[in-house]
Formats: sequence, C-alpha cells, structure tokens
Amino acid sequence: MNKIYKVGIVGYGNLGKGAIAAIAQSPDMELCAVFSRRANISIDAKDVPVVSIDDAAQWIGKLDAVLLCVGSATDLPVQGPYFAQYFNTVDTFDNHAHIPEYFAKMDAAAKQSGHASLISIGWDPGLFSLQRIYGEAVLPKGESYTFWGKGVSQGHSDAVRRIEGVQDAKQYTIPCQEALDAVRKGENPVLTTRQKHTRLCYVVAKDGADKAAIEKQIKEMPNYFADYDTTVNFISEETMAKEHSGMPHGGFVLRSGNTAEGDAHVLEYSLKLESNPGFTSSVATAFTRACIRMASKGMCGAFTAFDVPPAMLSPKSGEELRRTLL
Amino acid sequence: MNKIYKVGIVGYGNLGKGAIAAIAQSPDMELCAVFSRRANISIDAKDVPVVSIDDAAQWIGKLDAVLLCVGSATDLPVQGPYFAQYFNTVDTFDNHAHIPEYFAKMDAAAKQSGHASLISIGWDPGLFSLQRIYGEAVLPKGESYTFWGKGVSQGHSDAVRRIEGVQDAKQYTIPCQEALDAVRKGENPVLTTRQKHTRLCYVVAKDGADKAAIEKQIKEMPNYFADYDTTVNFISEETMAKEHSGMPHGGFVLRSGNTAEGDAHVLEYSLKLESNPGFTSSVATAFTRACIRMASKGMCGAFTAFDVPPAMLSPKSGEELRRTLL
Repeated sequence: MNKIYKVGIVGYGNLGKGAIAAIAQSPDMELCAVFSRRANISIDAKDVPVVSIDDAAQWIGKLDAVLLCVGSATDLPVQGPYFAQYFNTVDTFDNHAHIPEYFAKMDAAAKQSGHASLISIGWDPGLFSLQRIYGEAVLPKGESYTFWGKGVSQGHSDAVRRIEGVQDAKQYTIPCQEALDAVRKGENPVLTTRQKHTRLCYVVAKDGADKAAIEKQIKEMPNYFADYDTTVNFISEETMAKEHSGMPHGGFVLRSGNTAEGDAHVLEYSLKLESNPGFTSSVATAFTRACIRMASKGMCGAFTAFDVPPAMLSPKSGEELRRTLL
Repeated sequence: MNKIYKVGIVGYGNLGKGAIAAIAQSPDMELCAVFSRRANISIDAKDVPVVSIDDAAQWIGKLDAVLLCVGSATDLPVQGPYFAQYFNTVDTFDNHAHIPEYFAKMDAAAKQSGHASLISIGWDPGLFSLQRIYGEAVLPKGESYTFWGKGVSQGHSDAVRRIEGVQDAKQYTIPCQEALDAVRKGENPVLTTRQKHTRLCYVVAKDGADKAAIEKQIKEMPNYFADYDTTVNFISEETMAKEHSGMPHGGFVLRSGNTAEGDAHVLEYSLKLESNPGFTSSVATAFTRACIRMASKGMCGAFTAFDVPPAMLSPKSGEELRRTLL
C-alpha cells in the first residue's frame, strides 16, 4: 500500500512517542513532521524534521492532518485552535467537563479555515464514549455505568504535577468492586461518583515544599478530585522510579436494561491496557485516518468519535470489511 | 418529541413483535403499517393497519423506512430487493457467508430506486461487527476472537426447522471455556471453528419422520453446522415447550494485541441477552432512525453498521451527546 496520508504530530511526550510508533506501523500513513516547542530535540524517527510550533504555517498544504499529542489542561485550548487554522487536526482532549466549550472553540477555528478537527479521541473520551452511545441507543430503557482502573490516569497525574511544589506524581484510579458486581448482576444500582471509585496519588515533593498545602490542593481540585475519596502518599524519587514507572489503565462500560417485553440484557465492554499513552496514541492514529477521509469528503468543523463512520477507521476497503469483519 | 419518523415493519414473528414494542418506546418514531403475507392477522398495535406484502407499492411516499423482520435464509433475498424498490429499508440478514452477495443485490435495488438500505443489523452481524472493526483499527497488530453463547441461535433454529420432517427445533451455541480463557490471558491462540464452539440441537420430529435423515441433514448443512461438533437430541413437543421456550443468547468479542512499543492490551465486549429477538429488534429499531437520517442526507445504496456515524443512532442532539455521553 502506498503511504498516501501525510501526517504531522505535535508534542514529543508519551503520547507523541506512541503516535510515532503507531504511524510507523500503519500501511497507509507517513510521518512527515514533528512539531515541538523545543526545536532542537532528537526524535526516534529517521529523516523526519523537528519543526518549531511557531513555524507551523510553513507546512500548510504539505500535511493531510496533524495529531496533537499535548495535554488537555493548558496546551490543547491554545494549540488546538492554532493548528486548526492550518491543518485538519486530531486530539485527545480528555477534560470531560470542558468538552462543550473546547468543541465550540475548535468548531469555530476549523470552520473558518475549512478543515476537519476530530476532538477528544482515545479510550475515554473515545472508545468508552462509543460504548455509551451504542448501549443507550440500542437499549434505551436502562442504565449506563463507566468504571475506570485500576490504572494511572495521565490527565489526573498531569494535573497534580502542575501544582506548585510537586516534582513528580502518579494517580491511580480504582473501581469499587461491590459497585461493579451489582451492575453486572443487573441490579441497576444508583451510585454516586464517590461510591464508584477511589483515587490514590503518589507524589514526590520538591525540597522544602509545603506537603499539607499540596495535599489540600489535590483533594479540592474541581472536576479532577473534589468528588472522590482521595488518598495522597508522599514518596521519594527512587520509590517513584522503582514502583510506579508503568502507565497501565483500563476500565469497564456497562449498559443494563430491558427491552419492551421485559427481557433483561447486560452489555459489558472492558479494556486492560499495559500502557495508557501507547494505546491512546494508537487509537488516535486510527482516527487520524478517518479525519483525513472526512475532510476529503468536504466535512469541515469539529467532530467527535460519534460522527465517524467506523469503516473510515480501517485501511481495508468496504468490500473487504463486509467480507471479513461484518 | 414529535413522532417524526414514520416506520413500517414487515413480518410478524418474534422479530416483528419485538420491533413493534421497540418502536412504541421510541420518542421519535411512529409505527404506520405492518406488512405480512397473511393480511388477516391481528397484531398488538392499536390502529396500525396490516397490509398485504403485495400491496406495498400503495405505501410509497408514506413511510420513512421499512424494517424487514423476516428470515435470512429464504425471505430476505426476495423481500429485501422487493421493498428496496419502494422504501428505505433495514434488515437483520445474518448469513455471514452470503453477506457480499446480499449486499450487492440490495445495493443495486436501492441505487436504482434512490433509497438507503441498511443490511445485516443486529448483534452479530451488527454490534459484534462494530467491536471487530474498532478493535482491529485501534490495535492493528493483534488477533480478534468472537465467541457465541451459550444461547439459542434464531438463524440456526430456523434452518433446522426448514428440514423436511422437522416440526420444531431449537439450537444452542456453546463457547468452549478453555479457548475463551486462553484468549483473555493474552495468549493469542490459533483456534479452529471446531475448537471454539459446540452446537446442540433439540428437535421435535413430525410423526413418521426419518430421524436419521434429519440428523444427517443438520450435521452436514454447509455454513450452519458442517464445521462444528453438533449434537442432535429428539424430544417431545411437551419437553420443547417446557424446557426450551426462551430465546437467550449472548457472546464475546475480544481483541488482544500489542502497541508498537511492545505493551499488551486486551479489549473485551460481552452480551448477556434474555431474548435474542427482543434485543435484535431493539438494535434494528435504533439503526432504522440512522437509516432514515442517512437517506435524508442523500445517501443511497446499501450500507452496513460500518457506515453509520454513531450519533445518527440516538434521538439526542449532537450537543446533548457531547455533553452527556462523550
């Protein structure tokens, strides 16, 4: 297969590295540029130029899409609209409470420039969102449940790391087993946010930092921690490196309900991921293919996974998909 | 919400009855006609006319879509193209081996008449197909597995019922637990069709029927039974009614693989269904909404679940979906 889709990525953290590897494995995609604030970094991709983010406009017309591998808290709200001026974009914006606001911003930028911007791609938001919409649509009378973990949340760890006095941090999300069991049995329990998960933070504080202040800031952080029972453990840099270097994650989406004649049904989706950013960037790479195809059909503005016909994610033809996967 | 979508259904078996109930629960759909070969049946839907299939042309322009609730083996290959002449159609064609052929036939009929025909909707093909395409797209380096059961397969039971001398039949599909366990552990085993499932048939023979001939015909039936270890038990009408009146089903779709840097991931989807036709018709009803919307955008020809943007399945607006389900 010819490398027909020319792709750039923005950012060279865990997501960016994962995306480079995923693009290299895609039969129809070619990595053409890595945009970074640090133009002098060396990257693990032969003959691919590292370009300063400020020089993005020089690449207009040379890339079919740009995959934004930067954080949701402060980077994407600025860099998303910036890159949507010039390119079709895909991002992993994962701050659920702010999605409508971010969507509106990206929709305006993409419509003005005539591009397609696919936002909030990954596994949640992303694959889990898809399970939620399919579950509710096919079983309208019922309840939906999402459980995360046990695993490290990148977004929550980043949020803790941005607190003054924090040198490094890892946050584990842990589902409550009793709640999960009740849902699987079809009991349709009413669960508060607090009854479903606990949050566990390991923090390396900077020398002389005010640990009590850090702990308070974590526990009271809106959207991220305020609605959960959170435990904060301060550990050494060595312990962090030794015991918390992985980034596993996963979770469950369930839909439990009845069809009109009273029969009960339970739909369950689960992910067990050894590397959250590795998997997230692999998902985002597949959706980059779809974004390019949607743009080539004249679609412009912001979109989410809900707007993507699944066939557009696959390098296979419609005929092959029907024959082998339907 | 106004009942904006006018829907007809074809057939009044288990699927048709389930569809009537599902449409009644849909805020935006109105059941306007039930087409049947037997025009004198009485149906469980007040003020809805029963119309002879031969009179379908009289309803041109009065229905936004027709949901075909008839069998895949002999009915759909004839009635699918017949109804696609006049209406947008949705069907549950489930004979996997013949999907490409059926798609071509429906595509030609729908393109000629300017309609959209959504084929092979349900849970497999349907929701399971969606899990297969998402799994393969987001984790291209890996293996996919589908297990069915334990449950009654409508298609296989129908196939047995059509054999001469068979009065009634129920077929249970049973997954092999060892195979399922190996996949969950990420072992990526190579499994033959025979190693994954067994098939168990309960048959009520007509008086004087040749049981040995029936058993032989079942076990040798291509696509349906030939590739499996099949057990055939002949039972009385009374035992059938008492012990095998339900139609439970379910199954599992798994994708197991690695992202580029070597990390292992396992994706699992499972369904536990108390009523296969009740759930299938509920799925088909949601896709009927999508079919009408696709047609209203000018899409014409045959489509599958792979071509449907998930947002089109939901009565909710894009804004509400992003705010509540993304």
